[in-house]
Amino acid sequence: MSKVKVAIFSVSLDGFGAGPRQDLQNPIGVRGLELHEWVFQTETFQKMINQNAEMREMETFQKMTGQRGGGRGIDNDFMAASFENVGAYIIGRNMFGPVRGPWKDDSWKGWWGANPPFHAPVFVLTHHARASLEMEGGTTFHFITNGLDSALSEAKAAANGKEIRIGGVSVIRQYLLTGQIDELHLAMAPVLLGEGEALFHGMNLHQLGYRAVKVVAGENATHVIIKRVDY
Amino acid sequence: MSKVKVAIFSVSLDGFGAGPRQDLQNPIGVRGLELHEWVFQTETFQKMINQNAEMREMETFQKMTGQRGGGRGIDNDFMAASFENVGAYIIGRNMFGPVRGPWKDDSWKGWWGANPPFHAPVFVLTHHARASLEMEGGTTFHFITNGLDSALSEAKAAANGKEIRIGGVSVIRQYLLTGQIDELHLAMAPVLLGEGEALFHGMNLHQLGYRAVKVVAGENATHVIIKRVDY
Repeated sequence: MSKVKVAIFSVSLDGFGAGPRQDLQNPIGVRGLELHEWVFQTETFQKMINQNAEMREMETFQKMTGQRGGGRGIDNDFMAASFENVGAYIIGRNMFGPVRGPWKDDSWKGWWGANPPFHAPVFVLTHHARASLEMEGGTTFHFITNGLDSALSEAKAAANGKEIRIGGVSVIRQYLLTGQIDELHLAMAPVLLGEGEALFHGMNLHQLGYRAVKVVAGENATHVIIKRVDY
Repeated sequence: MSKVKVAIFSVSLDGFGAGPRQDLQNPIGVRGLELHEWVFQTETFQKMINQNAEMREMETFQKMTGQRGGGRGIDNDFMAASFENVGAYIIGRNMFGPVRGPWKDDSWKGWWGANPPFHAPVFVLTHHARASLEMEGGTTFHFITNGLDSALSEAKAAANGKEIRIGGVSVIRQYLLTGQIDELHLAMAPVLLGEGEALFHGMNLHQLGYRAVKVVAGENATHVIIKRVDY
Protein backbone atom coordinates (compact mmCIF):
# COMPACT_ATOMS: atom_id res chain seq x y z
CA MET A 1 0.00 0.00 0.00
CA SER A 2 1.33 3.41 -0.94
CA LYS A 3 1.55 5.82 1.97
CA VAL A 4 -0.41 9.01 1.25
CA LYS A 5 1.34 12.04 2.69
CA VAL A 6 1.50 15.80 2.81
CA ALA A 7 5.03 17.17 3.12
CA ILE A 8 6.75 20.54 3.62
CA PHE A 9 3.32 22.11 3.76
CA SER A 10 3.81 25.61 5.18
CA VAL A 11 1.14 27.09 7.43
CA SER A 12 1.07 30.54 9.02
CA LEU A 13 0.68 30.94 12.78
CA ASP A 14 -2.93 31.87 12.14
CA GLY A 15 -3.57 28.76 10.08
CA PHE A 16 -3.35 29.84 6.45
CA GLY A 17 -1.71 27.57 3.87
CA ALA A 18 -1.75 30.23 1.14
CA GLY A 19 -2.46 33.93 0.83
CA PRO A 20 -5.58 35.37 -0.83
CA ARG A 21 -6.07 36.53 -4.46
CA GLN A 22 -3.69 34.18 -6.28
CA ASP A 23 -2.55 35.41 -9.70
CA LEU A 24 0.44 35.18 -12.02
CA GLN A 25 2.50 37.50 -9.81
CA ASN A 26 1.36 35.79 -6.60
CA PRO A 27 1.53 32.04 -7.17
CA ILE A 28 0.77 31.34 -3.50
CA GLY A 29 -1.55 34.32 -3.09
CA VAL A 30 -0.71 37.75 -1.73
CA ARG A 31 2.15 37.42 0.82
CA GLY A 32 2.05 33.65 0.32
CA LEU A 33 5.78 33.50 -0.40
CA GLU A 34 6.41 34.55 3.21
CA LEU A 35 5.18 31.11 4.25
CA HIS A 36 8.04 29.55 2.30
CA GLU A 37 10.96 31.73 3.37
CA TRP A 38 12.33 28.77 5.32
CA VAL A 39 12.33 26.70 2.09
CA PHE A 40 14.19 29.31 0.07
CA GLN A 41 17.00 29.25 2.60
CA THR A 42 17.69 25.53 2.19
CA GLU A 43 20.49 24.06 0.10
CA THR A 44 18.05 21.65 -1.55
CA PHE A 45 15.89 24.47 -2.85
CA GLN A 46 18.80 26.61 -4.03
CA LYS A 47 20.26 23.63 -5.90
CA MET A 48 16.88 22.96 -7.48
CA ILE A 49 16.78 26.50 -8.81
CA ASN A 50 20.43 26.72 -9.79
CA GLN A 51 20.32 23.51 -11.80
CA ASN A 52 17.35 24.75 -13.81
CA ALA A 53 18.28 27.68 -16.04
CA GLU A 54 14.66 28.32 -16.98
CA MET A 55 13.37 28.49 -13.40
CA ARG A 56 16.32 30.73 -12.54
CA GLU A 57 15.15 33.25 -15.12
CA MET A 58 11.50 33.28 -14.04
CA GLU A 59 10.34 36.27 -12.06
CA THR A 60 8.52 34.08 -9.53
CA PHE A 61 11.66 32.21 -8.59
CA GLN A 62 14.00 35.19 -8.75
CA LYS A 63 12.21 36.49 -5.66
CA MET A 64 13.25 33.33 -3.87
CA THR A 65 16.92 33.21 -4.65
CA GLY A 66 19.86 35.44 -3.93
CA GLN A 67 22.20 35.84 -1.03
CA ARG A 68 20.32 33.52 1.24
CA GLY A 69 23.01 30.97 1.82
CA GLY A 70 21.28 27.71 1.10
CA GLY A 71 21.84 26.06 4.41
CA ARG A 72 21.99 22.49 5.54
CA GLY A 73 20.31 21.47 8.76
CA ILE A 74 16.89 20.47 9.99
CA ASP A 75 14.88 22.57 7.53
CA ASN A 76 16.97 21.26 4.66
CA ASP A 77 16.56 17.65 5.77
CA PHE A 78 12.76 18.02 5.72
CA MET A 79 12.91 19.76 2.33
CA ALA A 80 15.08 17.02 0.80
CA ALA A 81 13.02 14.18 2.30
CA SER A 82 9.77 15.58 0.90
CA PHE A 83 10.80 14.63 -2.65
CA GLU A 84 12.29 11.26 -1.78
CA ASN A 85 10.45 8.01 -2.51
CA VAL A 86 7.46 9.84 -4.04
CA GLY A 87 5.90 7.82 -6.85
CA ALA A 88 3.08 10.22 -7.72
CA TYR A 89 1.71 13.64 -6.78
CA ILE A 90 -1.87 14.84 -6.55
CA ILE A 91 -2.32 18.61 -6.62
CA GLY A 92 -5.14 21.10 -7.02
CA ARG A 93 -5.84 23.23 -10.03
CA ASN A 94 -4.62 26.36 -8.22
CA MET A 95 -1.30 24.79 -7.33
CA PHE A 96 -0.86 24.00 -11.02
CA GLY A 97 -1.61 27.54 -12.16
CA PRO A 98 -3.61 30.78 -11.95
CA VAL A 99 -5.87 29.92 -14.91
CA ARG A 100 -9.55 29.56 -13.91
CA GLY A 101 -12.45 27.99 -15.79
CA PRO A 102 -12.06 26.00 -19.02
CA TRP A 103 -8.54 25.79 -20.48
CA LYS A 104 -8.46 28.25 -23.40
CA ASP A 105 -5.46 26.47 -24.88
CA ASP A 106 -2.51 24.36 -23.79
CA SER A 107 -0.14 27.27 -23.26
CA TRP A 108 -0.12 27.08 -19.44
CA LYS A 109 2.24 24.29 -18.45
CA GLY A 110 2.65 24.96 -14.70
CA TRP A 111 4.79 27.40 -12.73
CA TRP A 112 7.99 25.43 -13.06
CA GLY A 113 9.23 25.67 -16.69
CA ALA A 114 10.03 22.80 -19.02
CA ASN A 115 11.59 20.57 -16.34
CA PRO A 116 9.44 20.68 -13.16
CA PRO A 117 10.86 19.43 -9.87
CA PHE A 118 8.46 16.47 -9.52
CA HIS A 119 10.11 13.91 -11.83
CA ALA A 120 7.01 11.71 -11.45
CA PRO A 121 3.37 11.66 -12.60
CA VAL A 122 1.38 14.59 -11.23
CA PHE A 123 -2.41 14.24 -11.09
CA VAL A 124 -4.10 17.65 -11.24
CA LEU A 125 -7.67 17.80 -9.93
CA THR A 126 -9.80 20.05 -12.13
CA HIS A 127 -13.36 20.34 -13.43
CA HIS A 128 -12.09 20.91 -16.97
CA ALA A 129 -10.69 18.14 -19.14
CA ARG A 130 -7.34 18.51 -20.83
CA ALA A 131 -4.89 16.13 -22.49
CA SER A 132 -1.96 14.88 -20.42
CA LEU A 133 1.13 17.00 -20.65
CA GLU A 134 4.53 15.35 -20.74
CA MET A 135 7.36 17.53 -19.52
CA GLU A 136 11.11 17.01 -19.32
CA GLY A 137 12.71 15.04 -16.51
CA GLY A 138 9.97 12.49 -15.96
CA THR A 139 7.13 14.81 -14.92
CA THR A 140 3.78 14.24 -16.67
CA PHE A 141 0.71 16.25 -15.69
CA HIS A 142 -2.55 14.27 -15.87
CA PHE A 143 -5.81 16.22 -15.53
CA ILE A 144 -8.43 14.37 -13.49
CA THR A 145 -12.04 15.50 -13.82
CA ASN A 146 -13.88 12.69 -12.04
CA GLY A 147 -12.96 13.38 -8.47
CA LEU A 148 -10.76 12.57 -5.50
CA ASP A 149 -11.13 8.79 -5.45
CA SER A 150 -10.33 8.50 -9.12
CA ALA A 151 -7.21 10.65 -8.71
CA LEU A 152 -6.09 8.57 -5.76
CA SER A 153 -6.53 5.24 -7.48
CA GLU A 154 -4.72 6.48 -10.58
CA ALA A 155 -1.93 7.84 -8.40
CA LYS A 156 -1.66 4.51 -6.56
CA ALA A 157 -1.37 2.62 -9.81
CA ALA A 158 1.29 5.02 -11.04
CA ALA A 159 3.22 5.14 -7.75
CA ASN A 160 3.87 1.42 -7.85
CA GLY A 161 4.29 1.10 -4.07
CA LYS A 162 6.12 4.38 -3.58
CA GLU A 163 4.51 7.22 -1.65
CA ILE A 164 1.83 9.59 -2.91
CA ARG A 165 2.22 13.24 -2.00
CA ILE A 166 -0.76 15.60 -1.89
CA GLY A 167 -0.47 19.37 -2.41
CA GLY A 168 -2.70 22.43 -2.35
CA VAL A 169 -4.91 23.64 0.53
CA SER A 170 -8.28 22.72 -0.93
CA VAL A 171 -7.21 19.26 -2.11
CA ILE A 172 -5.49 18.47 1.19
CA ARG A 173 -8.65 19.48 3.08
CA GLN A 174 -10.81 17.27 0.89
CA TYR A 175 -8.59 14.22 1.38
CA LEU A 176 -8.34 14.88 5.14
CA LEU A 177 -12.13 14.93 5.41
CA THR A 178 -12.26 11.47 3.83
CA GLY A 179 -9.46 10.20 6.11
CA GLN A 180 -7.31 9.21 3.15
CA ILE A 181 -4.14 11.00 4.22
CA ASP A 182 -1.84 8.90 6.42
CA GLU A 183 0.69 11.53 7.45
CA LEU A 184 1.18 15.28 7.29
CA HIS A 185 4.37 17.23 7.73
CA LEU A 186 3.41 20.84 8.37
CA ALA A 187 5.98 23.62 8.63
CA MET A 188 4.70 26.38 10.89
CA ALA A 189 6.10 29.59 9.44
CA PRO A 190 6.76 32.51 11.81
CA VAL A 191 4.30 34.80 10.12
CA LEU A 192 0.71 36.04 10.50
CA LEU A 193 -1.02 36.14 7.12
CA GLY A 194 -4.35 37.44 8.43
CA GLU A 195 -6.25 36.22 5.36
CA GLY A 196 -6.00 33.52 2.74
CA GLU A 197 -6.70 29.82 2.41
CA ALA A 198 -7.39 28.42 5.90
CA LEU A 199 -6.15 24.87 6.38
CA PHE A 200 -7.92 23.88 9.59
CA HIS A 201 -11.10 25.94 9.65
CA GLY A 202 -14.32 23.98 10.08
CA MET A 203 -12.46 20.67 10.17
CA ASN A 204 -12.09 18.60 13.36
CA LEU A 205 -8.81 16.80 12.74
CA HIS A 206 -8.87 15.16 16.17
CA GLN A 207 -12.27 13.62 15.48
CA LEU A 208 -11.03 12.52 12.06
CA GLY A 209 -8.34 10.53 13.85
CA TYR A 210 -5.33 12.79 13.39
CA ARG A 211 -2.78 13.30 16.17
CA ALA A 212 0.33 15.47 16.40
CA VAL A 213 3.10 12.98 17.11
CA LYS A 214 6.25 15.08 16.84
CA VAL A 215 7.39 18.70 16.82
CA VAL A 216 10.89 19.60 15.64
CA ALA A 217 12.31 23.12 15.76
CA GLY A 218 14.02 23.94 12.47
CA GLU A 219 16.21 26.93 11.72
CA ASN A 220 13.39 29.01 10.19
CA ALA A 221 10.21 27.00 10.74
CA THR A 222 8.72 24.62 13.27
CA HIS A 223 8.04 21.18 11.84
CA VAL A 224 5.01 19.22 12.99
CA ILE A 225 4.33 15.57 12.14
CA ILE A 226 0.68 14.55 12.25
CA LYS A 227 -0.47 10.95 11.76
CA ARG A 228 -3.81 9.30 11.42
CA VAL A 229 -4.52 6.70 14.08
CA ASP A 230 -6.81 3.76 13.56
CA TYR A 231 -9.73 3.28 15.89
CA MET B 1 2.21 53.99 30.08
CA SER B 2 1.48 50.44 31.18
CA LYS B 3 2.29 47.83 28.58
CA VAL B 4 -0.75 45.66 27.82
CA LYS B 5 0.25 42.06 27.21
CA VAL B 6 -0.94 38.52 26.78
CA ALA B 7 1.43 35.91 28.21
CA ILE B 8 1.78 32.13 28.33
CA PHE B 9 -1.35 31.90 26.25
CA SER B 10 -1.51 28.34 24.92
CA VAL B 11 -2.91 27.70 21.45
CA SER B 12 -3.39 24.37 19.70
CA LEU B 13 -1.86 23.71 16.28
CA ASP B 14 -5.31 24.24 14.81
CA GLY B 15 -5.75 27.58 16.55
CA PHE B 16 -7.89 26.90 19.62
CA GLY B 17 -7.17 28.69 22.89
CA ALA B 18 -9.61 26.54 24.88
CA GLY B 19 -11.67 23.41 24.37
CA PRO B 20 -15.47 23.39 23.97
CA ARG B 21 -18.16 22.89 26.65
CA GLN B 22 -16.44 24.40 29.70
CA ASP B 23 -17.82 23.23 33.05
CA LEU B 24 -16.67 22.59 36.60
CA GLN B 25 -14.78 19.45 35.56
CA ASN B 26 -13.33 21.07 32.45
CA PRO B 27 -12.13 24.56 33.42
CA ILE B 28 -10.52 25.09 30.01
CA GLY B 29 -13.16 23.15 28.11
CA VAL B 30 -13.05 19.52 27.01
CA ARG B 31 -9.41 18.49 26.43
CA GLY B 32 -8.37 22.09 27.22
CA LEU B 33 -5.82 20.94 29.79
CA GLU B 34 -3.83 19.33 26.97
CA LEU B 35 -2.97 22.84 25.83
CA HIS B 36 -1.23 23.46 29.13
CA GLU B 37 0.78 20.25 29.52
CA TRP B 38 3.93 22.30 28.93
CA VAL B 39 2.99 24.56 31.89
CA PHE B 40 2.40 21.68 34.30
CA GLN B 41 5.92 20.44 33.64
CA THR B 42 7.60 23.68 34.76
CA GLU B 43 9.17 24.23 38.15
CA THR B 44 7.31 27.54 38.52
CA PHE B 45 3.94 25.85 38.18
CA GLN B 46 4.77 22.96 40.47
CA LYS B 47 6.00 25.40 43.13
CA MET B 48 2.82 27.44 42.76
CA ILE B 49 0.74 24.34 43.47
CA ASN B 50 2.95 22.90 46.18
CA GLN B 51 2.97 26.13 48.15
CA ASN B 52 -0.81 26.30 48.16
CA ALA B 53 -2.35 23.49 50.19
CA GLU B 54 -5.85 24.32 49.03
CA MET B 55 -5.01 24.25 45.29
CA ARG B 56 -3.11 21.04 45.88
CA GLU B 57 -6.28 19.40 47.19
CA MET B 58 -8.52 20.58 44.34
CA GLU B 59 -9.48 18.01 41.73
CA THR B 60 -8.74 20.41 38.88
CA PHE B 61 -5.16 20.90 39.94
CA GLN B 62 -4.54 17.30 40.97
CA LYS B 63 -4.76 16.42 37.30
CA MET B 64 -1.86 18.78 36.69
CA THR B 65 0.58 17.63 39.31
CA GLY B 66 2.39 14.43 40.04
CA GLN B 67 5.59 12.87 38.81
CA ARG B 68 6.18 15.41 36.10
CA GLY B 69 9.49 16.73 37.28
CA GLY B 70 8.97 20.47 37.34
CA GLY B 71 11.75 21.42 35.00
CA ARG B 72 13.77 24.55 34.51
CA GLY B 73 14.56 25.76 31.06
CA ILE B 74 12.95 27.79 28.32
CA ASP B 75 9.34 26.85 29.11
CA ASN B 76 9.90 27.61 32.79
CA ASP B 77 11.48 30.98 32.01
CA PHE B 78 8.40 32.01 30.01
CA MET B 79 6.10 30.73 32.76
CA ALA B 80 7.96 32.64 35.49
CA ALA B 81 8.21 35.85 33.45
CA SER B 82 4.47 35.90 32.77
CA PHE B 83 3.73 36.80 36.41
CA GLU B 84 6.59 39.27 36.83
CA ASN B 85 5.98 43.02 36.82
CA VAL B 86 2.22 42.59 36.33
CA GLY B 87 0.27 45.34 38.09
CA ALA B 88 -3.23 44.25 37.10
CA TYR B 89 -5.04 41.48 35.22
CA ILE B 90 -8.11 41.66 32.99
CA ILE B 91 -9.87 38.35 32.41
CA GLY B 92 -13.15 37.12 30.98
CA ARG B 93 -16.06 35.72 32.92
CA ASN B 94 -15.30 32.18 31.70
CA MET B 95 -11.72 32.34 32.86
CA PHE B 96 -13.05 33.28 36.31
CA GLY B 97 -15.51 30.43 36.46
CA PRO B 98 -18.11 28.15 34.89
CA VAL B 99 -21.08 30.12 36.29
CA ARG B 100 -23.26 31.69 33.57
CA GLY B 101 -25.90 34.40 33.79
CA PRO B 102 -26.57 36.45 36.94
CA TRP B 103 -24.57 35.52 40.07
CA LYS B 104 -26.93 33.55 42.29
CA ASP B 105 -24.76 34.24 45.32
CA ASP B 106 -21.14 34.98 46.16
CA SER B 107 -20.11 31.37 46.65
CA TRP B 108 -18.03 31.11 43.46
CA LYS B 109 -14.65 32.71 44.18
CA GLY B 110 -12.63 31.55 41.15
CA TRP B 111 -10.84 28.29 40.36
CA TRP B 112 -7.85 29.00 42.53
CA GLY B 113 -8.90 28.73 46.19
CA ALA B 114 -8.43 31.34 48.90
CA ASN B 115 -5.02 32.53 47.72
CA PRO B 116 -5.05 32.85 43.90
CA PRO B 117 -1.76 33.13 42.03
CA PHE B 118 -2.33 36.69 40.77
CA HIS B 119 -1.35 38.72 43.85
CA ALA B 120 -2.72 41.85 42.15
CA PRO B 121 -6.10 43.34 41.22
CA VAL B 122 -7.97 41.22 38.68
CA PHE B 123 -10.69 42.91 36.61
CA VAL B 124 -13.31 40.40 35.47
CA LEU B 125 -15.42 41.42 32.46
CA THR B 126 -19.04 40.36 32.96
CA HIS B 127 -22.56 41.53 32.17
CA HIS B 128 -23.66 40.92 35.75
CA ALA B 129 -22.72 43.21 38.61
CA ARG B 130 -21.18 41.83 41.77
CA ALA B 131 -19.29 43.31 44.72
CA SER B 132 -15.50 43.19 44.65
CA LEU B 133 -14.01 40.11 46.24
CA GLU B 134 -10.84 40.41 48.29
CA MET B 135 -8.82 37.21 48.50
CA GLU B 136 -5.65 36.31 50.37
CA GLY B 137 -2.22 37.25 49.05
CA GLY B 138 -3.11 40.56 47.41
CA THR B 139 -5.59 39.33 44.81
CA THR B 140 -8.87 41.26 44.57
CA PHE B 141 -11.46 40.42 41.91
CA HIS B 142 -13.33 43.45 40.58
CA PHE B 143 -16.36 42.81 38.36
CA ILE B 144 -16.62 45.25 35.44
CA THR B 145 -19.97 45.56 33.69
CA ASN B 146 -19.42 48.64 31.53
CA GLY B 147 -17.09 47.28 28.93
CA LEU B 148 -13.54 46.90 27.66
CA ASP B 149 -12.42 50.52 27.83
CA SER B 150 -13.62 50.89 31.37
CA ALA B 151 -11.82 47.73 32.46
CA LEU B 152 -8.63 48.90 30.78
CA SER B 153 -8.66 52.34 32.36
CA GLU B 154 -9.36 50.87 35.80
CA ALA B 155 -6.57 48.35 35.28
CA LYS B 156 -4.19 51.12 34.21
CA ALA B 157 -4.97 53.15 37.31
CA ALA B 158 -4.45 50.08 39.50
CA ALA B 159 -1.28 48.91 37.74
CA ASN B 160 0.54 52.13 38.56
CA GLY B 161 2.94 51.85 35.63
CA LYS B 162 3.41 48.10 35.83
CA GLU B 163 2.16 45.82 33.05
CA ILE B 164 -1.43 44.75 32.44
CA ARG B 165 -1.98 41.14 31.48
CA ILE B 166 -5.09 40.03 29.56
CA GLY B 167 -6.51 36.51 29.74
CA GLY B 168 -9.31 34.49 28.16
CA VAL B 169 -9.93 33.86 24.45
CA SER B 170 -12.94 36.10 24.01
CA VAL B 171 -11.48 39.02 25.95
CA ILE B 172 -8.13 38.76 24.15
CA ARG B 173 -9.93 38.79 20.79
CA GLN B 174 -11.94 41.86 21.73
CA TYR B 175 -8.86 43.82 22.82
CA LEU B 176 -6.92 42.70 19.72
CA LEU B 177 -9.71 44.02 17.49
CA THR B 178 -9.38 47.43 19.12
CA GLY B 179 -5.57 47.33 18.82
CA GLN B 180 -5.12 47.78 22.56
CA ILE B 181 -2.78 44.85 23.14
CA ASP B 182 0.91 45.71 22.72
CA GLU B 183 2.45 42.25 22.89
CA LEU B 184 1.36 38.61 22.89
CA HIS B 185 3.32 35.60 23.98
CA LEU B 186 1.60 32.53 22.55
CA ALA B 187 2.70 29.01 23.38
CA MET B 188 1.90 26.68 20.50
CA ALA B 189 1.04 23.35 22.10
CA PRO B 190 1.75 20.15 20.13
CA VAL B 191 -1.89 19.13 20.00
CA LEU B 192 -4.89 19.25 17.66
CA LEU B 193 -8.04 20.15 19.57
CA GLY B 194 -10.39 20.01 16.59
CA GLU B 195 -13.02 22.19 18.28
CA GLY B 196 -13.22 24.88 20.93
CA GLU B 197 -12.57 28.60 21.24
CA ALA B 198 -10.76 29.76 18.11
CA LEU B 199 -8.26 32.54 18.73
CA PHE B 200 -7.56 33.76 15.21
CA HIS B 201 -10.71 33.00 13.26
CA GLY B 202 -12.24 35.94 11.41
CA MET B 203 -9.56 38.31 12.66
CA ASN B 204 -6.85 39.73 10.39
CA LEU B 205 -4.01 40.27 12.85
CA HIS B 206 -1.63 41.42 10.11
CA GLN B 207 -4.03 44.16 9.06
CA LEU B 208 -4.50 45.10 12.72
CA GLY B 209 -0.76 45.77 12.84
CA TYR B 210 0.48 42.64 14.58
CA ARG B 211 3.71 40.92 13.52
CA ALA B 212 5.43 37.75 14.72
CA VAL B 213 8.83 38.97 15.86
CA LYS B 214 10.35 35.91 17.52
CA VAL B 215 9.89 32.16 17.74
CA VAL B 216 11.63 30.16 20.48
CA ALA B 217 11.50 26.37 20.75
CA GLY B 218 10.79 25.35 24.34
CA GLU B 219 10.97 21.87 25.81
CA ASN B 220 7.23 21.14 25.38
CA ALA B 221 5.82 24.12 23.47
CA THR B 222 6.88 26.57 20.79
CA HIS B 223 6.87 30.16 22.01
CA VAL B 224 5.86 32.95 19.65
CA ILE B 225 6.22 36.66 20.41
CA ILE B 226 3.86 38.94 18.51
CA LYS B 227 4.03 42.74 18.71
CA ARG B 228 1.89 45.55 17.40
CA VAL B 229 3.72 47.90 15.07
CA ASP B 230 2.77 51.52 14.63
CA TYR B 231 1.91 52.77 11.18
